[in-house]
Amino acid sequence: MIIVMQNSHTPEHVDAVVARVLEMGFRPYVSDGEETTIIGVIGHSDAEQLAPLQYLPGVANLVPVTKKYKLGSRDFRPKDTVVPVDGREIGASKLTVIAGPCAVETEDQLWETARAVKESGASMLRGGAFKPRSSPYSFQGLGKPALEMLDAVRKEFGLAVVTEVLAPDDVDLVARHVDMLQIGARNMQNFTLLQEVGRSGHPVLLKRGMSATIEELLMSAEYILANNNERVVLCERGIRTFEDSTRFTLDINAVPVLKQVTHLPVIVDPSHATGKWNYVAAAARAAVAAGADGLIIEVHPRPSEALSDGPQSLRIDRFCDLMRDLGPLAQAVGRSL
Amino acid sequence: MIIVMQNSHTPEHVDAVVARVLEMGFRPYVSDGEETTIIGVIGHSDAEQLAPLQYLPGVANLVPVTKKYKLGSRDFRPKDTVVPVDGREIGASKLTVIAGPCAVETEDQLWETARAVKESGASMLRGGAFKPRSSPYSFQGLGKPALEMLDAVRKEFGLAVVTEVLAPDDVDLVARHVDMLQIGARNMQNFTLLQEVGRSGHPVLLKRGMSATIEELLMSAEYILANNNERVVLCERGIRTFEDSTRFTLDINAVPVLKQVTHLPVIVDPSHATGKWNYVAAAARAAVAAGADGLIIEVHPRPSEALSDGPQSLRIDRFCDLMRDLGPLAQAVGRSL
Amino acid sequence: MIIVMQNSHTPEHVDAVVARVLEMGFRPYVSDGEETTIIGVIGHSDAEQLAPLQYLPGVANLVPVTKKYKLGSRDFRPKDTVVPVDGREIGASKLTVIAGPCAVETEDQLWETARAVKESGASMLRGGAFKPRSSPYSFQGLGKPALEMLDAVRKEFGLAVVTEVLAPDDVDLVARHVDMLQIGARNMQNFTLLQEVGRSGHPVLLKRGMSATIEELLMSAEYILANNNERVVLCERGIRTFEDSTRFTLDINAVPVLKQVTHLPVIVDPSHATGKWNYVAAAARAAVAAGADGLIIEVHPRPSEALSDGPQSLRIDRFCDLMRDLGPLAQAVGRSL
Amino acid sequence: MIIVMQNSHTPEHVDAVVARVLEMGFRPYVSDGEETTIIGVIGHSDAEQLAPLQYLPGVANLVPVTKKYKLGSRDFRPKDTVVPVDGREIGASKLTVIAGPCAVETEDQLWETARAVKESGASMLRGGAFKPRSSPYSFQGLGKPALEMLDAVRKEFGLAVVTEVLAPDDVDLVARHVDMLQIGARNMQNFTLLQEVGRSGHPVLLKRGMSATIEELLMSAEYILANNNERVVLCERGIRTFEDSTRFTLDINAVPVLKQVTHLPVIVDPSHATGKWNYVAAAARAAVAAGADGLIIEVHPRPSEALSDGPQSLRIDRFCDLMRDLGPLAQAVGRSL
Repeated sequence: MIIVMQNSHTPEHVDAVVARVLEMGFRPYVSDGEETTIIGVIGHSDAEQLAPLQYLPGVANLVPVTKKYKLGSRDFRPKDTVVPVDGREIGASKLTVIAGPCAVETEDQLWETARAVKESGASMLRGGAFKPRSSPYSFQGLGKPALEMLDAVRKEFGLAVVTEVLAPDDVDLVARHVDMLQIGARNMQNFTLLQEVGRSGHPVLLKRGMSATIEELLMSAEYILANNNERVVLCERGIRTFEDSTRFTLDINAVPVLKQVTHLPVIVDPSHATGKWNYVAAAARAAVAAGADGLIIEVHPRPSEALSDGPQSLRIDRFCDLMRDLGPLAQAVGRSL
Repeated sequence: MIIVMQNSHTPEHVDAVVARVLEMGFRPYVSDGEETTIIGVIGHSDAEQLAPLQYLPGVANLVPVTKKYKLGSRDFRPKDTVVPVDGREIGASKLTVIAGPCAVETEDQLWETARAVKESGASMLRGGAFKPRSSPYSFQGLGKPALEMLDAVRKEFGLAVVTEVLAPDDVDLVARHVDMLQIGARNMQNFTLLQEVGRSGHPVLLKRGMSATIEELLMSAEYILANNNERVVLCERGIRTFEDSTRFTLDINAVPVLKQVTHLPVIVDPSHATGKWNYVAAAARAAVAAGADGLIIEVHPRPSEALSDGPQSLRIDRFCDLMRDLGPLAQAVGRSL
Repeated sequence: MIIVMQNSHTPEHVDAVVARVLEMGFRPYVSDGEETTIIGVIGHSDAEQLAPLQYLPGVANLVPVTKKYKLGSRDFRPKDTVVPVDGREIGASKLTVIAGPCAVETEDQLWETARAVKESGASMLRGGAFKPRSSPYSFQGLGKPALEMLDAVRKEFGLAVVTEVLAPDDVDLVARHVDMLQIGARNMQNFTLLQEVGRSGHPVLLKRGMSATIEELLMSAEYILANNNERVVLCERGIRTFEDSTRFTLDINAVPVLKQVTHLPVIVDPSHATGKWNYVAAAARAAVAAGADGLIIEVHPRPSEALSDGPQSLRIDRFCDLMRDLGPLAQAVGRSL
Repeated sequence: MIIVMQNSHTPEHVDAVVARVLEMGFRPYVSDGEETTIIGVIGHSDAEQLAPLQYLPGVANLVPVTKKYKLGSRDFRPKDTVVPVDGREIGASKLTVIAGPCAVETEDQLWETARAVKESGASMLRGGAFKPRSSPYSFQGLGKPALEMLDAVRKEFGLAVVTEVLAPDDVDLVARHVDMLQIGARNMQNFTLLQEVGRSGHPVLLKRGMSATIEELLMSAEYILANNNERVVLCERGIRTFEDSTRFTLDINAVPVLKQVTHLPVIVDPSHATGKWNYVAAAARAAVAAGADGLIIEVHPRPSEALSDGPQSLRIDRFCDLMRDLGPLAQAVGRSL
């Protein structure tokens, strides 16, 4: 942490800050400049603990210089982490494509989609059983019966399955039926839930909150990692901005940023990040070209009848076209599909 | 909902949309213009259900025209709702000031603050027992012992108490110790938790998510109202923007907007909305002038030693100064303190 | 500037940075911590000049600690600046209210509004002659004839007049007809224009760009101040955020922030900041309560027929109501109207 | 435009709106629903002209349904426009790569970069002569001498050259020395300047403002097109969001959105969109994969000594690596480099 003094500070102000820093158990380094005096407090990670120093007389502001996360950082583990999910590997050279409906609606819809996903060459199936909906009057998912359907299709088609979990009390139930637990964007800072999926030891797909910074995403991952669950995959799914021609703005920069600062695998959700099916393919291609380890895509046999997220769901034939296009692209960036 | 057709649409496209709308049980109204054809689908609130129509050939986009919330709307109840909390009334002509520390840290800290809050004329005490922290390494609150301390001070000083609840399983416990349950910004779309506080029947202080629109705030309130709990108070606490000289941007416009569209009381949190104690008083005055029904303010006897949110906490003497200033201001807008 | 080294840096990396800093003529201060090494470069304001150091091996990132503006800073001039405009004083204890139509449309419209503005007790008139419109097909203002009308009403009613100037070549012409030049939000970083109004020596109303930070606003002011024109008034007029129930989000925090860091007067434009007339009064009251030195408000005799900004213009009677309400409010914060 | 009535409207309100719409020369279509009444006003593009209707009693809000731009729309011209620039074609199947320093600093720097750009296979050179800088104390570009240097290198190396123009009065001068005029992000809504480059007839590279919507970008393009200059190339260069690990957020979604709604070519600036050289290559690859027609990239022989934008400039060797990587990627999306 750097403590920047006001231009009008007195030597007594500096002495008081130094005394308080020592009292807190840290070493201060004072640098006197013509215009500014700064006091470095290094060898310490908890910016939070030092924050109240801002309140001392003569202090202009505090500038954090160390990262707030540890276990997820490349400084902690320089090599890429590969997350195993029922025999597949997320974060390895082969791209992971997860596809399926926003919500499980009927047995027919799920089986039809699962068959197509399997045939297209994708290796994992998505499908919501519990749906977090902005409105209490919208379809909330089928719940437990959907989990059982997912369990059945994964056995039938040999697909690994990921589904969202909303409540801490549901973690065990969901983990018994699927291979990977998804923490949705709206729950990225639901710390009770993060701790619970951490304790489960099950692989976790952690989606970035729609207004979370990359650092906050990594701090949420830290809640899972700190509970001794290292099987965390991060997902960029679009952030909220002023632009309204798309549902969210895909933060494609987040891909190289995350690959630089963390060892955890990074996948992209082009369906939510655009909100319109006709932009999904371009966003998916961009994600692969930027270096993502995989994609999670909404696919529905009849999007115009979907109970949720229809507008951003790809029809099966269009999803198959996309899979075909991604092959050469993956190769061009040194990966396979 | 308005369905806007592409300029290049054919009559067959329009017929297909009309047929599908009728099939879904709604009445379509077609208006043919020189440049554009639009199809109105009115008499229906669930925008979600109609969304997949966007997928039909020839459709350019859908434009929602009805509100997505009902019970919280002024159309549903034109008169202001007043929420009773242990004898006080939030939303009445007298402003409600809630003050206290970010987190309960020690008995001394809590009692010293509570006494000052009481003497200043504020009527409610805040204090965190369970703290949602971005980092798993930060102070997470004292938990149950803090609830007991809060219970003790409310009896001693006759202050109503509000505290945050993080987990659905804690709702009953917390409700037994305090007068009002707070849903924090990070949990505004934790729908499991919303339903649970709804069922509790306890008064709820619902904070706006840092990137939630006003409409989304009202849809979250709807989760509580739809569970037959009408005692909901909304709180604007700053939104996330590009401006970085303050922690968040107080959306002061939200006060008149909310007062127009909903009958629920609206209070403002100037501490989080600015993130720096020296801007808190100005923001608090602005909130009262804009028509807020109350304020929730962080106060700490020694902010430079606070375990959380020190930089945005007012010292007790400064809080008392603010209370003194607010009196004439309240009067100038036709209210009392 | 603080140079933060990567955790993996070598002593040679530090030596190279130190050498380069010395070569550039500055003094480096190295502080070695357990986790991080930082190098302070102080006594220098041009963050820009040091920015390329970020490119050196072993450097993690640069953290600026000094402000990028000088003449506008309170460090440079601690006392409030009062800007004289034709006998009025902006920034003094009496609030400045500037009111009038978005655009000058007809002589009747202008005279009717000017008379009402005068009678309400406001001291300055606004009215656009040259209008910056997003669309080339929208009304672009009457141009020179509007300037002449403005000149005539100011003589008739003894009102000081402010109008926007769009092109560097028009500065002299506009300055001959009105008392104060407005730089609109879209031109806040039109540096050619800023330099030209600087050279003119005429009072300038500088509006914040809709996505400009407070620091950038002050750096734009610096372009005018550095051209020896000290008559600069800053205007907060709403920033662009994700919230869509209002046209912009009034950044009310900007008022206390600006009052702290700069000596220049600060006024608020509640008309653009809300975009809807029914929220204008609440936003205006909030601005006064937060400490603004004045307001600029759009008023039109018949908003439903206005050629621009009708929806956010107050009808004359409503503007008079607002003026009446502002009196006691101004008093409550120690000012007069 | 759709006029949405308040739930509490009366038949008289509807009659008054209908009367006013007819008076304005348009045809209203009334649709009465159970919950809402809407009035469609179609066959008209100027949303601005209808906006004041919002002011009429009983009106809840107005919803625009037609685009505000015409000449740039695919409805106006369905086929892709190819912009010829000194023999090259922007928007054709071959990608256009524009590279060079942020600012022209010295003859050596420019020649060294131009030679490398030429050898790498890029076809156009960029280099700033007039620099729009946030601070008046930063390097503002060499001005006219830089234009002459640019003129000399384009003749020597056979590269087409693009440079930014800041002032309307400079348009002719700049157009005499270079092949393409750039309108920078900060000037995207400098309408005086847009009209002037429109009149020049010279090819224009129009950068998106950092907080401009895609629709606003297209409306700014309209200012140039409406002045009979069809040689407009659009450039996505990152938007301002809350994320602070990069300088801006590359809105990669903008590429497919623009390709759908406009016939104009679209290029991407990965240097500004990331602000850090180590993310430039990933962003450039993403742009190509998403369907961009080209790239504009900052390259400098010695970024750590650059007078501006050093941190985001690629070293020559790294730029050459990127060019090599882009070849197979271009092929994978059906284009060439």
